[in-house]
This record gives sequence, C-alpha cells and structure tokens, in this order.
Amino acid sequence: MLIALAQINPVVGDLEYNTGKILEYINMAKAAGSDLVVFPELTLTGYPPQDLLLNKQFLAAVDSKLREICRLSGETGVLLGAPMQDNNGLYNAAVLAYRGKIQDVFYKSLLPVYDIFDEKRYFEPAKERKCVVFKGRKLGITICEDIWNDKDYWNRQRYDIDPLEQLVQQGAEIIINLSASPYHYGKHFLRTDMLTKIAAKHKVSIVYVNQVGGNDHLIFDGSSMAVSREGKLLFCLKKFSEDIALFDTEKNCKEGKVEGGTEDISWVCEALLLGVRDYLQKNGFKRALVGLSGGLDSSVTAAIAAAALGAENVVGVAMPSRYSSQSSIYDARLLAENLGIEYRLLPIESVFKAYIDLLNPGDRLLMDLAEENIQARIRGNILMFISNREGQIVLTTGNKSELAMGYSTLYGDMAGGLGVLADVPKVMVYQLAEYINRDREVIPQSVINKPPSAELKPDQKDEDSLPPYQLLDQILKAYVEEIKSIDEIAAMGYSRDLVLDVVRRVDKAEYKRQQAPPGLRVTSRAFGPGRRMPITQRWRWA
Amino acid sequence: MLIALAQINPVVGDLEYNTGKILEYINMAKAAGSDLVVFPELTLTGYPPQDLLLNKQFLAAVDSKLREICRLSGETGVLLGAPMQDNNGLYNAAVLAYRGKIQDVFYKSLLPVYDIFDEKRYFEPAKERKCVVFKGRKLGITICEDIWNDKDYWNRQRYDIDPLEQLVQQGAEIIINLSASPYHYGKHFLRTDMLTKIAAKHKVSIVYVNQVGGNDHLIFDGSSMAVSREGKLLFCLKKFSEDIALFDTEKNCKEGKVEGGTEDISWVCEALLLGVRDYLQKNGFKRALVGLSGGLDSSVTAAIAAAALGAENVVGVAMPSRYSSQSSIYDARLLAENLGIEYRLLPIESVFKAYIDLLNPGDRLLMDLAEENIQARIRGNILMFISNREGQIVLTTGNKSELAMGYSTLYGDMAGGLGVLADVPKVMVYQLAEYINRDREVIPQSVINKPPSAELKPDQKDEDSLPPYQLLDQILKAYVEEIKSIDEIAAMGYSRDLVLDVVRRVDKAEYKRQQAPPGLRVTSRAFGPGRRMPITQRWRWA
Repeated sequence: MLIALAQINPVVGDLEYNTGKILEYINMAKAAGSDLVVFPELTLTGYPPQDLLLNKQFLAAVDSKLREICRLSGETGVLLGAPMQDNNGLYNAAVLAYRGKIQDVFYKSLLPVYDIFDEKRYFEPAKERKCVVFKGRKLGITICEDIWNDKDYWNRQRYDIDPLEQLVQQGAEIIINLSASPYHYGKHFLRTDMLTKIAAKHKVSIVYVNQVGGNDHLIFDGSSMAVSREGKLLFCLKKFSEDIALFDTEKNCKEGKVEGGTEDISWVCEALLLGVRDYLQKNGFKRALVGLSGGLDSSVTAAIAAAALGAENVVGVAMPSRYSSQSSIYDARLLAENLGIEYRLLPIESVFKAYIDLLNPGDRLLMDLAEENIQARIRGNILMFISNREGQIVLTTGNKSELAMGYSTLYGDMAGGLGVLADVPKVMVYQLAEYINRDREVIPQSVINKPPSAELKPDQKDEDSLPPYQLLDQILKAYVEEIKSIDEIAAMGYSRDLVLDVVRRVDKAEYKRQQAPPGLRVTSRAFGPGRRMPITQRWRWA
Repeated sequence: MLIALAQINPVVGDLEYNTGKILEYINMAKAAGSDLVVFPELTLTGYPPQDLLLNKQFLAAVDSKLREICRLSGETGVLLGAPMQDNNGLYNAAVLAYRGKIQDVFYKSLLPVYDIFDEKRYFEPAKERKCVVFKGRKLGITICEDIWNDKDYWNRQRYDIDPLEQLVQQGAEIIINLSASPYHYGKHFLRTDMLTKIAAKHKVSIVYVNQVGGNDHLIFDGSSMAVSREGKLLFCLKKFSEDIALFDTEKNCKEGKVEGGTEDISWVCEALLLGVRDYLQKNGFKRALVGLSGGLDSSVTAAIAAAALGAENVVGVAMPSRYSSQSSIYDARLLAENLGIEYRLLPIESVFKAYIDLLNPGDRLLMDLAEENIQARIRGNILMFISNREGQIVLTTGNKSELAMGYSTLYGDMAGGLGVLADVPKVMVYQLAEYINRDREVIPQSVINKPPSAELKPDQKDEDSLPPYQLLDQILKAYVEEIKSIDEIAAMGYSRDLVLDVVRRVDKAEYKRQQAPPGLRVTSRAFGPGRRMPITQRWRWA
C-alpha cells in the first residue's frame, strides 16, 4: 500500500482556502498512485481553532466542506482531520473517505489540557478504539496525543489508557497518526526518539503526519515521518515547509527524502522565519517595521524579518535619544545596509523635551524610571504612527530573558503586533546572531561584542540590573520551563538569594507580560497561553 | 446542628494571610457555638490559583498550612477547600477537620473546562461520591460544579453523573457546597433559582458557601445562602463583602440576615467597586490615576474609583488636545470637583506638535488615523509617566462595546493596569451613571446628555463610526455572550448586513483585546480568558 503524507499549512478558520489546499494535495497523491493520503489533525479548520468551535454556524460550515471533500474522494482514500459532531457532543476526528463516501470515522481518545492545550474545553473523548481494514491492510488510526502515553517510554502515564497499545492488540499493522504538534527546541528529537521506540516495541510501522505553519504564537514544524516496524526512521518530510511524500508499506522503506536528525540553532531560526512569515501573511500584512537600537535583539529581529519577508519589505527605524551612543547609531545604520532594508533616522529629543517641559517641574531632569520609560514609549508611539499611516506591522524585539524579568517597557519596546524573540533567551539570541552571520557579517560584530544596554540613562548596562545572562537563563529555564522548586534550582549550583531574587522578579512582571503581543514559541514553555499565572497573587517563594 | 457559613476573601497564593483569616473565622464560629464551619472552594490558596498549582513547592506549603489549620480544629468541625494530592494526582478537595485531625476528605467530581475554567488542567476528578456522618447528621459534601448538573433543571446535562443525586440516594440530609462562583449580572438570580429548585426536588437543605473578592478579572460576590428542604431561600449572606452567618439545621430556618433578591444595576456597581478595591489592595496599590476626557466612560470610571478607594486616592488628569471641546474640559473639571478628587490639567498640544514636526512632511496635518491615535497615545504616555513617578495605577476607561468594535487605541486609552468598564456595554454605562447620580448630580448631566465622541478629529461622533449603542449592544450580546449564529441574530430583527459588519469588526479587533489589561467581568462572557479566539484566523461570517 502506498500512503501519501500530506504535510500542509492550513489557515485557521479559512475553510475555503484549506479545502482548496486539501484537494490540491489529494490530486498530487492520486497522480503519484497513492492508495491513501493522510492529512494532519484538524486540517480542515487549522489548529488550534479555539472558540470558533463553540459556534454552530462555524461547525455547520465545517461539516458542509467536509462532506464536499469526501464526495470528491475516489480510488485514493483520504484520511482527514476535522471536528465532527454526534448526539453526544463534538469530537476531534479523523475521517476516512473513499469512493465519494465517508467510510469510517475515528475519534481522538486522549485530549490534552496541559501546556497550551485546551482540548477538553471543546471535545469529548472517544469511547472506544477500533482498527479499520483498508485495501487489505489493518490500520490503527490515532490522533496526536493518542500515541503519547506509552507506559515504558514515560516515567508517568498521563492517562489511564494507551490507545496505541489497544490498537496493536486488535491487530493493527500500521499506525497512522494525524498530528498538530507545535515545535519547540528539542521537540523533533523527542518525537523521533519516541516514535522509533514505540514502533519497535509494538512491531508496527508508524506514519506520522504533522501540521506545518505558524498560528499566532505557535509554530508547527511539520517534520512528518515514517518509521519501520523495526523502529527505524525511514524518512522525514521537510521541516517548516509544506511537503508530501510516499510511504510504501510493502517495501517498508524510504520513498522520500531524509531530513531531520539532530536539532541545532538552525531549527530555531527556521521556526522564527516561518512564524514571522505566516503571522504576516495570514493576517494580511506584507511589510514590517522594526525599531533599530544598534543592539543585539533588534538586529537579530530585523535580520529574521528581512530573511522571512524579503529585505524590501522591512523598514528599520533608528530613534536615538540623548543617551544613545554614537556607536549604536552607527551600528543600526550599518545593520540596515548589510540587510538591504530601508533605514530611517528619527531622533526623539524634540518629543522627549516636549514631554519633559510638560511634566517635569522646572527645567531639571530627575533621572528616574518615568524618564527612562517615556523614551521607550516615544519610540513605541513613533513606530505605531508609521504603522497606522503606512500599514506595516511593528515587530517587537524583546527577548525572553528581558520579558521574564520585566526588563522592558509596556507600550514602549513592548508595543507591536508580534514578539519575534519573545521566547528566545538572551544566550540563544547570541547563538542566532552567530548563525545569521555564518556566511558573512550581517549583524555587525561590534553589536555582538558590546555589553547589552537599554541606553535609557547615561552609562546604563543590563548587567547593572540583571544577573549575567549565562547564569540568568539557566535559572529562568529551571523556573519557567521546568517549574522547579527553589531548592531544586539552588541545588543546580546557584546562590539561593540569587534564585529567589530572579523568581520574585519573574512573578512581579506578570502584569506586563499579559499585555505583550503574541510571542513566537520556541522553548518547551513560553510566556503566553501555555503558562497561566494570576497577576493578583501573593505567593512568595522562600 | 449549627453550621457557620464563613464567606471570606482570600488572596490567591498568600497562604499566611489566608490561614490567618481562616483561623479568625473559625474562632468566630466557635464563639457562636457552631458545630461546623464551612469555607469556600480552594479557600486556602484563593481561587483561581492557576499554574501555581503546577509547582510542588507551592503544593508542599499548602499541605503544611492545611495540616496546621486542621491541628487547631477543636469541637467545631472545619470544612475547608484546598488542593490535595494522593498517588493518583491532585484534587480540588474539601477537608473535614475535627478535634485536631483530618476526619475525612472529599474530592470534586465535576471539573469545569468551559468559560474561564480550566480545572482539568490541574485536577483529577473524584472516583466516587460518599456521605459523611458528622455529629449525628448525614452530610453530602460537594464542591461548586458538583451541584450544577441536575437533569431536570438544565436542558442539557454537561456531565454524565449528578453527584448531588448520588449523595441524596445515599441518604444525605444536608447538602453542603463549597463554591468559588464568579459573579456576572444575573448570576445570583440563577443560583437562587437553581438551589431552591434542586433542594425542593431532593428534599434536602442546602448550605452554599461562596468565595467573595476580586482576583484579576474575576469578581466573586459571596451571596452565600441556606435553602430549606422545602426549597425556600432562608437567608443570604452579604454580597461583595466578607460575612459569616449561622444555619440551624434543626430549626430549618433563618439565623442570619436576609439579603439578595432581584439584581439591579446596583449589583454591577458594587461588583466593580469590589473589583477595583481588591485589584489595587491585593497588588499593593493605594492610589489610582484616571484620564478624564469629559466623556461618560472616564466620568463613570473616576466615580467608581473614588467610591472604591476614597476620593483622596484618585487623581483625574484632563489632557485636552486641539480637538477637545470647551464643554469637555469644563465637564472633566466639574466631575473632579463633584467627586472631590485631585484634578490636573495637562494639554497635549506641545507634545502633539513635536510628534507632527518630527513625523509629518511639511507643516500640514493629514488628518489620518495615525494623527488620531497619536493623541490617545500621548495621553497614555502621560498617565504612565505620572504612574511611574508617583506610583498610582492607571485605570483604563474603555467600555465593552468599544473594545468589541476595536474603537479604542492600543497603548493609548487602552494603556493601564485594570479595565474598570471593559466588560460593561455602553448602554449599561449609562445605567451606571444614573445609578451613581441617584442622590445627587455627581456625573454632570451634560456628560450624560451629549453624544459620545472620541474628540480625536473635528466634529467626530461615535455614531459616525458605530451603530447606535442601543442596537449595537444587543447584537454584541447575542454574538459575544450567547455565541449565536448570524441567522439567529438577524432573526432577532436586525439587518443581516449590519450584523455581519458588527461581527466582522469584533473578529478583526481581537489583536487589540489580547493586549488589553485585565477587565473586570460583569457579564456572562467577557473578553479575556473566558473567550479564547485566535488572532490569526480567516473564518468569515456570511
């Protein structure tokens, strides 16, 4: 049997577009002589459709499109992810269509409600697991989480049942999995490791078809794959790009190209490129605006924007103040030249002075936080002014370490439509800069070398206010991503006082982060919907 | 048996404070000769603790405090809501302590995952329901949602089991319910109606103990109550305030004061007062800053702030531009005088001019959106400047109708720490104004009478850009709160084109709302965590 893995990039809610895309890939699969073509989880709606699923008009439109696609199925079977209703509620379903009819329907059993997932908000779980015989082969059809509960692979089983095991016990020869599995650094390695091990354990081949594309903060990497019953990774589809490949179940070997392997910083870079590109495209933007400070974060953000959108679609705006160093202004311009993006220089002194004249008593500066923040906010306003007038989207440049510590200005450098580096720790921003400079010096070396500074007052350095980033990022990872206790973090070799200082500052800045734009997620836990903390809370770490 | 209903206002995460408060109420109950004192759901942590529940250090501290409280229990039994762990996971529990020991533990069976609730993210459901005999009476102990699944009361049962019914079948004489049920307009009527009906149906008395207090966007009204086995509402505790009352199960009659009854606009006003007061107090703020435009929303916001915090703790700032009418400037000042709050006048012309000189080619204004928004943003910056310097929190003034339609400026009038009217539709803002003016003219009548205007360009009126609010608010309620389809909304008597225009604009403004500060919730569905819509989506209503 020839199974086509159709790794497509649907747009959430755009049923017309998604249907067109699905039909296009069905035709490709047909042309290649496939017996069956498999699409990702909830392909028809895109993932995650969120509260669109609560509206019956939306569900009726989904049902109508689903039936249209199924009617158009021919000798090539179509296995498609879509929400489906019955009398008991709504299900996250895989629909098998063949010769113009819905031949069978499979519901998702394991509904994740951790991290960014809210599936029990919308769906009922399957009450039973069943195989299907299609063209003489017994298939076990699963949806994403359904295969993530192996009792040998995980220390702790999250759910009482293992749908994969049940299907194997029922005689499944081939496990097919429709996924919408968001990317984070290390995720592909985890998936490959788990899939190969459970395939070998159960002696079944696995066809894993993942969504690709960016939707708000989530980036789906694709990286679909086929694994042999011996637990050998046969091939991977492209990462961060649409792709289609064939798996010949009889030959049990590669028909496509191998990609993947170990992840390095290039994965994060490609994830961000896709995240930026899709956020703009799917929301109807063509051009982006980046404030250039001459520092590392804005340089990396601009470089990613230029690579994602084309240099001609990026405008860099330098907005120096009286505290900006000459080297920063020079570096911002040099970066823009290196990237080939439009460069504008708009010094903020006159506006700053107008605020100070209005708000400060007498002529003297008080050199306080209010005066620091107003500079960042003037810059935010200028970018939004240009955006409102010319239609570009403003990309924010703050990194995860800053956001964590509240070392950023609300409505200032946090103003914009998308946080490109919002989930990239500062140390990883350096890695990205080196990766971006791998062939030639795009980001001026002086930008990489100089000590990070907000330049909001004379001689300001990040390290006056923050622990060294090498240290800070480790503590942040342990606290934010791994949810470790103070004891556990201190036991990693850090001073308890330092750890307490860091985690208290993270908690205190929650109110800022809840007003941040969506930030592209590349770690196992980003700020945003995957981490739900109250602002109003007085738990104090000790 | 004398049961004390201890309606307290815990602070999320503040285990010290909450423990102190709990012990204080235990002592009051003891002094009154109570046999049992009942606290709300998850009292020890405050509700909702959200992802604090994922950290084992937090859970260990909770466990330690819980055991401390239980050790201090004496002849008065204590029934307390707290998270509890066993080998199978974490539970939303009610702990019965007596004579220094934990006598029994009851787990919540029905875990809500709709609206603002995420309980399956944290908790396992109870596997069984059991009564407990305490001092000779058979009690059925339930937690919030456990009593919200009666098959006769609801058209559709949300869950397969009805814990209340099972407990009654096991012989429960008295149903006790520990709740953390957030307020929205009409909720008290709904609760009273349901509780009296299910009490009468099952012939059991019900002791309902609800949390009170504001936590971020949620406002808990308290309004705890006792219902007789005949289905008679015996008494309610105070609304929007801590309270304690006794229920004598033998007399089956009132021992406390009756309050409650039908809800009117005063409930919304009191909800907002509590929401504002608690947000500031629990987050360590004493004073608030409100931008006064001379319009209705800012006037009502300032009046609520003054009533909640004391006039001496509110600063009103008028920031007129060249487009502000003389009457608006006059009204802002008059309002401040009426309220007795500090008033500052900071005209924005000089700053506006500095931006225009920097950003506009030539000397001419283009009269475009960029110029409109920059005015709102200058005002946001001024308020944040004062806040940064002086330490007040900025209250935003936008109403729900505006937020719905995106008729507000990001980083401008949306800049601040708490949205006081963010869930109040414009028509209800008028009702609030009339209620605030019930004894004397606090809000100048001219503010109420004049047509709403953003005053960001000459002769601007809201109704140039928006449908009349009487009409708009009905459509928004149907779409946002009731999640109706276009056909259903049109069938209410509105032009289909108008409905489509409104819902499309609501969808389009999602990106703005996701950067709004928390907004106090007073309707059945607010923007915020109870409504989870993707920004990146292209579903188009038709």
